[in-house]
Amino acid sequence: MLREAKIEEAFERKYPEQVVLVTSCPPGGKPNVMAVGWAMIASSEPWMFALGIDEGSYTYSIIRGTSEFVVAYPSENMAQHVLFAGTHSGRDTDKFAATGLAVQKASDVSAPLLADAVANFECRLVAEYRPGDCPIIVGKIIAAHVNNDPHLKRLYTVAKGYKLSGVRLL
Amino acid sequence: MLREAKIEEAFERKYPEQVVLVTSCPPGGKPNVMAVGWAMIASSEPWMFALGIDEGSYTYSIIRGTSEFVVAYPSENMAQHVLFAGTHSGRDTDKFAATGLAVQKASDVSAPLLADAVANFECRLVAEYRPGDCPIIVGKIIAAHVNNDPHLKRLYTVAKGYKLSGVRLL
Repeated sequence: MLREAKIEEAFERKYPEQVVLVTSCPPGGKPNVMAVGWAMIASSEPWMFALGIDEGSYTYSIIRGTSEFVVAYPSENMAQHVLFAGTHSGRDTDKFAATGLAVQKASDVSAPLLADAVANFECRLVAEYRPGDCPIIVGKIIAAHVNNDPHLKRLYTVAKGYKLSGVRLL
Repeated sequence: MLREAKIEEAFERKYPEQVVLVTSCPPGGKPNVMAVGWAMIASSEPWMFALGIDEGSYTYSIIRGTSEFVVAYPSENMAQHVLFAGTHSGRDTDKFAATGLAVQKASDVSAPLLADAVANFECRLVAEYRPGDCPIIVGKIIAAHVNNDPHLKRLYTVAKGYKLSGVRLL
């Protein structure tokens, strides 16, 4: 049975929730990485991702300029990196230098792949919407990469306050 | 380290993945329920959900008519119901009658709440986009409801082929 609740209270029941990392790179500049919780597949022919990216973020300004980004599923080993990426701004911090996040060159975009992620998806910006207070950007996936370790598992946000963990089946 | 892969192969590394149930109700008709994997929060002021809803689905036609729906986080106890909802069409099946899914009356919309879900969100349609092959509908959340059982946990899609399970922290 249910009881009416504040929306914020009801959202506390959403965990574990997926989190992705988004990389981007300004022309001639250093790459940046951001943690994004609002993410979903948005099309299958062609494959697309939709992401909620804060308008004030450095990532948003880069993507608006380059129309390119990479979506990565972080692995369980990357909790500290995701926490750092999600709580610092690339405007004043080189997050790759600060974290030592391992990168690989992408096939088709300037943004880097994350070598320790479970999977990476190179995307080209195809649409942007603003239904509420956050830009929703949509990228067409133009290349994909998986980790050579087939046992590597995805990291999740498991509670409010940036608690990150792997999960196992019941 | 990474290797390039087909997009579909890379998506096989996405699990566990969230799934939601979406209820809707045509004027004077029987309610329907659908399973949706493409779902995310899309705004925080006001709170909104974005959902990828197949254009040919009965749910899509109902929501286009009523502009109302409910998003529910299914609980671990609801795996069989979610599987049924996700593999049958409401055009030819009364899924509530077939499954015995327990409902409660919503506060502000005609679509029913799911009494055994972890949380329910009543939504009013505010936008629709079509970046690729699937309509993305956006609903403003106008009321929320949580289960009285605080220990009830959310159900996930844990592998391709409609495998559903609860998860526990690592």
